[in-house]
Amino acid sequence: MIRSEETICAPATALGGAIAVIRISGQASLTICDKIFYPLDKSIKIIDQKGYTVVFGEIRSDKEIIDEVLLTVFRSPHSYTGENSAEISCHASQYIIRKILELLISNGAVSAKPGEFTQRAFFNGKMDLSQAEAVADLIASKSKASHQVALNQMRGGFSAEISRLRFELLNFASLIELELDFGEEDVEFADRDKLKTIVTSVKELADKLAASFQLGNALKNGIPVAIVGKPNSGKSTLLNTLLMEELAIVSEIPGTTRDAIEDTIVIDGIEFRFIDTAGLRETADVIETMGIKKTHEKISQASIILFIDEISDRSETINKRVQSVRDMIRNSEKHLIILINKTDIDSDSYQAELEGNIELEQNDSLLFISAKEKSGLEELRSKLSEVAGKGNLSSEDIIITNIRHYEALLHVSESLGRVISGLENHIPEDLMAIDIRQSIHYLGEITGEITSDEILGNIFRNFCIGK
Amino acid sequence: MIRSEETICAPATALGGAIAVIRISGQASLTICDKIFYPLDKSIKIIDQKGYTVVFGEIRSDKEIIDEVLLTVFRSPHSYTGENSAEISCHASQYIIRKILELLISNGAVSAKPGEFTQRAFFNGKMDLSQAEAVADLIASKSKASHQVALNQMRGGFSAEISRLRFELLNFASLIELELDFGEEDVEFADRDKLKTIVTSVKELADKLAASFQLGNALKNGIPVAIVGKPNSGKSTLLNTLLMEELAIVSEIPGTTRDAIEDTIVIDGIEFRFIDTAGLRETADVIETMGIKKTHEKISQASIILFIDEISDRSETINKRVQSVRDMIRNSEKHLIILINKTDIDSDSYQAELEGNIELEQNDSLLFISAKEKSGLEELRSKLSEVAGKGNLSSEDIIITNIRHYEALLHVSESLGRVISGLENHIPEDLMAIDIRQSIHYLGEITGEITSDEILGNIFRNFCIGK
Repeated sequence: MIRSEETICAPATALGGAIAVIRISGQASLTICDKIFYPLDKSIKIIDQKGYTVVFGEIRSDKEIIDEVLLTVFRSPHSYTGENSAEISCHASQYIIRKILELLISNGAVSAKPGEFTQRAFFNGKMDLSQAEAVADLIASKSKASHQVALNQMRGGFSAEISRLRFELLNFASLIELELDFGEEDVEFADRDKLKTIVTSVKELADKLAASFQLGNALKNGIPVAIVGKPNSGKSTLLNTLLMEELAIVSEIPGTTRDAIEDTIVIDGIEFRFIDTAGLRETADVIETMGIKKTHEKISQASIILFIDEISDRSETINKRVQSVRDMIRNSEKHLIILINKTDIDSDSYQAELEGNIELEQNDSLLFISAKEKSGLEELRSKLSEVAGKGNLSSEDIIITNIRHYEALLHVSESLGRVISGLENHIPEDLMAIDIRQSIHYLGEITGEITSDEILGNIFRNFCIGK
Repeated sequence: MIRSEETICAPATALGGAIAVIRISGQASLTICDKIFYPLDKSIKIIDQKGYTVVFGEIRSDKEIIDEVLLTVFRSPHSYTGENSAEISCHASQYIIRKILELLISNGAVSAKPGEFTQRAFFNGKMDLSQAEAVADLIASKSKASHQVALNQMRGGFSAEISRLRFELLNFASLIELELDFGEEDVEFADRDKLKTIVTSVKELADKLAASFQLGNALKNGIPVAIVGKPNSGKSTLLNTLLMEELAIVSEIPGTTRDAIEDTIVIDGIEFRFIDTAGLRETADVIETMGIKKTHEKISQASIILFIDEISDRSETINKRVQSVRDMIRNSEKHLIILINKTDIDSDSYQAELEGNIELEQNDSLLFISAKEKSGLEELRSKLSEVAGKGNLSSEDIIITNIRHYEALLHVSESLGRVISGLENHIPEDLMAIDIRQSIHYLGEITGEITSDEILGNIFRNFCIGK
């Protein structure tokens, strides 16, 4: 798994721009560069260069010039990986990228595995495991909220606090184990009150972090929204309108357009993800035959339900339909937004009648829209943003977005709960020691103080190449 | 058109990798960086940094940290554009890229137009126009041959020679115009023999370069290959097999896989482009109804024709079909490769019979293959490479790939042809002067010594953003 004696290389940018960057890291990286890179200033050797300097020159394969490039030198430990590293900035041609990688490899480098640069940064103590995981989240972030959560985590976030608490627990564990060594003598090295205080505060932190997971996960992956309603009520028109407007916004900044429409929109820095839109993507939903079971599934995955009906329907009919949706979300914290569509068809008299007669419960909202004429959509967006709790997230909030951390924290909370009740009920030290050890183990898994090849493999496999 | 007082910015890499690079160029670039970039070492100011140095720090928007980045400083004139410039290397998140661009723009930069960095390099004398055009070709290059042609041109290629010859012509033009000023006095400042020598050598160069256009164009865009044959002869199977094998080769290097199969393959560094494969892309060509007219069109666009027939057909039938293809390419330099397919169905006896009886002409080749079982394809690839003239291209060859240059060179040759015959027939100086001026004009268009906004607009419009 660890192959730190090798020098690794990989493209760090995607094909398609004006320039491409190829990364090299490892003991031999600078000497390998000297074999294929010919500086304009012939007196320069890359191996002699200071870190954080750039050299202009040519990459050559025998006598063939591959490209004119900029080569940036990083010297251990002041590099991303902590090792000697270099970045070659070349023209983004498929031929050039491929040829430079081939040259690096034929001169002793090996292709980097996904996430291997970050993995080395972790092994070399440049970041802990939860920080390393945040790097991938940061790259994937599309909204302000997901970006902020990832950046906080990458910059240390909760891991320093977890490391500190883990260290305190570790001390107590040692003292209790010392007591066990003295066996019958009935000494008490570990102050039980202090122990209870620290265990309680660690459990509280673990519970608070675990509780933030649902929000964190929604921020990271987008808050799930379901659009439901009878056929022909305008579900697909609404979806298409929202997505097309989003596409227009995203395309504003050159070079950042999306290849295809995704099923997400960003409002006030928060991403909303529409669930199961396969059948809704068509321009008309005439043929839609989605049954109750399918609707139920969709609603169960959503945090926000957009229920859509037509203005020409009677309030009794609408109330009945709304009630059947409400039955599905009873006892959950899901939000229901009732959209009365097709205000273009008919108007004020109908609207007044419906406003007076549609029954709303707490957490419900009622909006009148015309998906076709794009009226009422601004109100819908405001409502979505409000429901998602716009502004509730401050930059200091510690939020968990990673299911691996979430599961570890649940384990921590569980074992510390047993320690607390053990302290209260004076259960034997050896049982308590096991629970403390267990919580220490799970805390260590979060920051990577305890890891296995399997955990590391799972984490870094999902990274992109070149990171 | 020219807005050199502005500071421009744009992403220079495509979205999708681990890191992204944002370029800034112009008078204010370093001061703008100082407004949004907070170096780790707080004593550092970007405006004071030496060129070719890298600084680590944070991009911030008010108090919000956007990303931890590396910022590379380039100082005029030692930068790509010749201006003060910077490159910000950040995490490749859509949110981060967008936010940094917004920050740069709100602090005084403007979004760069496609090719605007290279256009500034041209205006600032860092490269001439044909070199600037080669930058775009270099980025687009996929094969060794197209890469070499573009790199040669970017590194000066023919433009120094053209500039030199143009300068000599300019001298003669001045002398002749001086003669005209003296009117009736019948003086001769310009040595007619020397003039004839220089005009002849310029015309020879122009003719040689123009003649290289066909090859250059084929190398740049791929050598056009047509696959023709009766329905069910295996055209689509052959095409799919060749393209799928190519895809496997291309995918070998991580990060350089293609999103979709293109209709091109690269053999020995030369790209081959299959023409009009729309109907061939399906797995079976049973329904193909391509008529004679369509086949004719396809063949007329191709340099190489793969004619495919079945081994179970009689040699008389095959000869007749081959003859009808040959009639279409009579008097051209097209190559015909006759492929007898389905050697898996039947075997040696048929093959021997056909080998003896299929009539070949010069430029024809005969190969036996099984597209289904992938036998004989290595021979086909060798043959394609041989026909395309593998190894005929040396790295010193001056090759024109640009239709704009080609047209200018034809004009140069034409006007100089008139000058030569004028010298032989002693036509009036004023007419000759016009022709010399014209050839000077067209030579200047190639290197950009003479340009118009329209020409520049056309050239740089086709560049990617960030270059």
